[in-house]
Amino acid sequence: MADTAVRPQDVPAEPASGPRPEAGAPRIDVPLVTDKLLGTWADVRRTSRAMLKDPALWREDGLTHHEHRERVFQQLRKLVAHNSIARAFPVEYGGENNNGGNLASFEELVLADPSLQIKAGVQWGLFGSAIYQLGTKKHHDKWLRDVIELKIPGAFAMTETGHGSDVAAIGTTATYDPETEEFVIHTPFRGAWKDYLGNAAVHGRAATVFAQLITGGVNYGVHCFYVPLRDEDGEFLPGIGGEDDGVKGGLNGVDNGRLHFDHVRVPRENLLNRYGDVAADGTYSSPIASPGRRFFTMLGALVQGRVSLDGAATWGAALALKIAVTYGNQRRQFAGASGAETVLLDYGKHQRRLLPRVATTYAQAFAHDELLCKFDAVFGGEADTDQNREDLETLAAALKPLSTWHALDTIQEAREACGGAGYLAENRLVTLRQDLDVYVTFEGDNNVLLQLVGKRLLGDYAKQFKGKDPKEIAAFVVGQTAGKVFHGAGLRQLGQAVADFGSTARSVELGLRAKDQHELLTDRVQQMVADVAGRLRPATKLAPEAAAELFNENQTALLDAARAHGELLQWEAFADAVAGIEDEDTAQILGWLRDLFGLGLIEKHLSWYLLHGRLSHQRAMAVTRYIDRLCRRLRPHAQDLVDAFGYEPEHVRAPIASGAEQARQDEAAAHYADLEARGQRPPKEKKPASR
Amino acid sequence: MADTAVRPQDVPAEPASGPRPEAGAPRIDVPLVTDKLLGTWADVRRTSRAMLKDPALWREDGLTHHEHRERVFQQLRKLVAHNSIARAFPVEYGGENNNGGNLASFEELVLADPSLQIKAGVQWGLFGSAIYQLGTKKHHDKWLRDVIELKIPGAFAMTETGHGSDVAAIGTTATYDPETEEFVIHTPFRGAWKDYLGNAAVHGRAATVFAQLITGGVNYGVHCFYVPLRDEDGEFLPGIGGEDDGVKGGLNGVDNGRLHFDHVRVPRENLLNRYGDVAADGTYSSPIASPGRRFFTMLGALVQGRVSLDGAATWGAALALKIAVTYGNQRRQFAGASGAETVLLDYGKHQRRLLPRVATTYAQAFAHDELLCKFDAVFGGEADTDQNREDLETLAAALKPLSTWHALDTIQEAREACGGAGYLAENRLVTLRQDLDVYVTFEGDNNVLLQLVGKRLLGDYAKQFKGKDPKEIAAFVVGQTAGKVFHGAGLRQLGQAVADFGSTARSVELGLRAKDQHELLTDRVQQMVADVAGRLRPATKLAPEAAAELFNENQTALLDAARAHGELLQWEAFADAVAGIEDEDTAQILGWLRDLFGLGLIEKHLSWYLLHGRLSHQRAMAVTRYIDRLCRRLRPHAQDLVDAFGYEPEHVRAPIASGAEQARQDEAAAHYADLEARGQRPPKEKKPASR
Repeated sequence: MADTAVRPQDVPAEPASGPRPEAGAPRIDVPLVTDKLLGTWADVRRTSRAMLKDPALWREDGLTHHEHRERVFQQLRKLVAHNSIARAFPVEYGGENNNGGNLASFEELVLADPSLQIKAGVQWGLFGSAIYQLGTKKHHDKWLRDVIELKIPGAFAMTETGHGSDVAAIGTTATYDPETEEFVIHTPFRGAWKDYLGNAAVHGRAATVFAQLITGGVNYGVHCFYVPLRDEDGEFLPGIGGEDDGVKGGLNGVDNGRLHFDHVRVPRENLLNRYGDVAADGTYSSPIASPGRRFFTMLGALVQGRVSLDGAATWGAALALKIAVTYGNQRRQFAGASGAETVLLDYGKHQRRLLPRVATTYAQAFAHDELLCKFDAVFGGEADTDQNREDLETLAAALKPLSTWHALDTIQEAREACGGAGYLAENRLVTLRQDLDVYVTFEGDNNVLLQLVGKRLLGDYAKQFKGKDPKEIAAFVVGQTAGKVFHGAGLRQLGQAVADFGSTARSVELGLRAKDQHELLTDRVQQMVADVAGRLRPATKLAPEAAAELFNENQTALLDAARAHGELLQWEAFADAVAGIEDEDTAQILGWLRDLFGLGLIEKHLSWYLLHGRLSHQRAMAVTRYIDRLCRRLRPHAQDLVDAFGYEPEHVRAPIASGAEQARQDEAAAHYADLEARGQRPPKEKKPASR
Repeated sequence: MADTAVRPQDVPAEPASGPRPEAGAPRIDVPLVTDKLLGTWADVRRTSRAMLKDPALWREDGLTHHEHRERVFQQLRKLVAHNSIARAFPVEYGGENNNGGNLASFEELVLADPSLQIKAGVQWGLFGSAIYQLGTKKHHDKWLRDVIELKIPGAFAMTETGHGSDVAAIGTTATYDPETEEFVIHTPFRGAWKDYLGNAAVHGRAATVFAQLITGGVNYGVHCFYVPLRDEDGEFLPGIGGEDDGVKGGLNGVDNGRLHFDHVRVPRENLLNRYGDVAADGTYSSPIASPGRRFFTMLGALVQGRVSLDGAATWGAALALKIAVTYGNQRRQFAGASGAETVLLDYGKHQRRLLPRVATTYAQAFAHDELLCKFDAVFGGEADTDQNREDLETLAAALKPLSTWHALDTIQEAREACGGAGYLAENRLVTLRQDLDVYVTFEGDNNVLLQLVGKRLLGDYAKQFKGKDPKEIAAFVVGQTAGKVFHGAGLRQLGQAVADFGSTARSVELGLRAKDQHELLTDRVQQMVADVAGRLRPATKLAPEAAAELFNENQTALLDAARAHGELLQWEAFADAVAGIEDEDTAQILGWLRDLFGLGLIEKHLSWYLLHGRLSHQRAMAVTRYIDRLCRRLRPHAQDLVDAFGYEPEHVRAPIASGAEQARQDEAAAHYADLEARGQRPPKEKKPASR
């Protein structure tokens, strides 16, 4: 009897292949698809993945949170030694001014240990970036090299116990004292303690502290200050106190904690003064006159956190699918018609559970690469306009919620699809989910982000009317209403009129093709925004309380519209990616996968399409059948599709996806075959004669 | 500055009340509702909850899994000392023959630590029950007292690495040797290792091992054997080996592990022989002639695991909602129209996130009590017929998937609704979710259970035709089809004809009232089953492979039908509970909550109702608006509704639900009010004149 379980400390075996397409049948070109998925910074991702083959960088289960924190802190030093973390910083401080590549590399850390990713994100993406993005040359010269080299581990002290999403309302104050030319950092009440800060509980020696800047008796709003926290021995400096946040739902390699300040004095120069400064005499000045715009510019400079979570969540979901599909291709349960046990992925329900999630993950990977390109263009300076910054922030706010929620949903489905084996930490799904859980509420709570997107959509919608005379607007509104009634009556729309009279199979393909999917998805966003805008129109004439109440009544609908917008963007990215593939077989199969994604969205929102007359009953009935058909069609390609994520055994590491299950199945089958051959398999008891 | 955070080791404070109904407005009678929710065995639940106020029984975060296992093992001794675990056993062994009460008490353990619940479940609900339910008096006399008193900690060795859901196909063999009158327990290959067994890694001294019983060269199928595992020093006995399953996604206080047997000999008497026996000469006998029925009778004797998970999951979801609603009633974020910050639960979206889940949890609690009554009647002997056993198993298989999935969904939404605070282990949501995760795949994988239910529904459907002549069947089929076309054309159904012409508000209430909800939910189950049955009808004429393929194509639809059946049962239990409430205000408010549950189900499946013509477009459009209105109507009752779960501070323990957040909010508000009063609040920078 062979113990075929592969433990993480072993060298992982190449997984045995599950069922593949028959010889001669079309197959995707796996390396080509991997290139596509890895995207614009594929080379950097590959470098990062090569580095991550080192077991010293892997998550280790069963550590206490104290041990885990120390392990991850040592791993950070390894990243420094690999020169893996400074790409985004300027050349003069050891960087490459490569913003897109920096995030691409950073996202891949999720494969080793999400705690490592987030701890690195705190140190260089938040603490270091705050100094770089919000500070000026004197700050860069003074601290940036030490931050990059981890000589100053630091915390990013923005969130407070009392204020997370509403940063503008934080309670910490930084009051300028012209006598001594110092800022006095102070925490006025318990709710204003800084909270949930990585590096705050143990390792942080300094922090970038966000506080209300008060000078000359006026509050100039939230600004960021460099504040030393601990001495060489790790003891808090005078006036500073804190608490450990303790064990969390995951990411226990990050030492989150609380900080509070009792009239802590820092030199005037410690104000990170790119967007606002205080002269020695206390005079405030800023290149951005509007306090609101200044605030959002400062926050916008830190958008990279959101951008990178979109990518990390997508690659996390991909890892879960690689594990579950590989296992589903090897694992057997319940005898089928032939007497042999059925491979899990041959069950209709199992296909339905996993394949649409593969499709969504592909869509996200392609959409993420576009987001990363936009980010790189803005932060690299080539396209750094206000408009582009606003577009980038909206795009990040639209995609990050979808991908982080998708990651949790997918990892959970993968874990359930692997049964009890999926619940073991060694198979990685449970810890991956635990670590990624907080991605849906940090760096912008997902619902708050979607509300930002929704407001932007409403703003864009309103712009259509700007400068138009009331008659034109009236005509537009009538048109909208007419359109709605038209649809509401269930009359045909788009190309359905023709298609509904063809044969069912052909009509389905005709009426639910890529261009139809695009129109259906686009139309829905437009109509949802128009509907909410229409319902909110009376708000301008209402008292503030009543207007707020009206908005509140439409909040859920606005968030739904924002989500629909994000889904459309993902679909478009997927369609563009497929259009760019020259290999015919690959394009065809990825086209099916794009259809599965698009039709999955339409099925999810089917009642909307029916209620708004965008789909006939007949066409709507066909959606689910078509999805089932696409699942069956894609089933032989399932392994190729997850192999195309490009993970090597050292990235996967789950024993159930190592080929061990195939070996167990083979051993069991051989055992019974041998008994049969030797006539030694005990026959089953005969059924009693039925009475 | 007061640190108002309450740590679990402190005596928890009574939570401050959130917004409540205005004076004079109707309110629920909270103690009355608590009585209703606690159900038939309320007294036992209260006894259990009183015991669980002891901090020694609480989950402690930050332990290694080794430490956690030891803690839970010691907690088991406390349960024995409290005489809390033996209720289901016969009086002569120290029990009370109180089956319903036993599970009610057991379910409440989830409040202390789900690991404690599951470890207790392994010891007494599985290992002990196997001896009691599958054994006979000689076994009871020999082992039951020691098992009850934890002198023999034991494992329940059914699942193997290679076979979980398909128990009939396990590989372990028990071959009878008439020479020595012993059974030889043997593991023939790696996939036949017993796996995921609580008590196997460390504490188990014996196991109830399921194996293929072979005697006289014939395999009589799966039977259960009592097998000693370890000696007094905890060392494996000869021929026995095993492995630790290591860290899991949760429940790390349970020592799950693997076991394998190399020709281990046990006396003939160790066969638990209630349903099948082997005489000294090797002759097999059984009171149940049919091997299939015998197998399912044995498994059915262990249904209590499923029953209890339905309850534990429901009470776990209730705990999460108690925490999130209490926090949502105290926490404020973003200034509202008045300038004061808005309480989270006043946001439309926040209500939508939490209140429908409160409604579902109520439905589950009421449905669970009915399940428990049925279980008690069958296992107590009053109603122990084959038909009742089958009904009980179907009911458990229908409810357990819904409630365990609902628990994960609800705890996650609660955790997200509490933001970063929700991610801290001290606030319990993350660990609760981690521990309950495996409930959806153990004691019957949820999808496999739903498939059982689906097959039962198909069987019941087919029975309608039994003995009818083909003409009648044909008429029925035509009727079905006609019905479908009728509905598909969108013609009116139920009371809609009248209601659609009334005012919108009144028509909604008229057409979506309780009786309409009931008809819509019932109708959907019937139609879905009929549709699947219709599509499967050709299967009898097909070759096995083609028939299997046809079934596979309809698998997802069958599972959906089973789920719809479970939802209907929950709705009916909720409606019955409301009907039994005499207090008028309470009945009215719980009636709204039942409507929220019913309409939530209809909204979830809205596309089905539209496609099958069960709802007009106008009525369907009204569903979402009505749900929004119910949320607003129930919002002032939110705190009462979660308080009615009857949890005391020692059961809740989460600092964010202790009143600490209210104290922080009050302190911050007082701070700013004081600054204002003293004229010392720095004014905000003036906005620049717009250009």
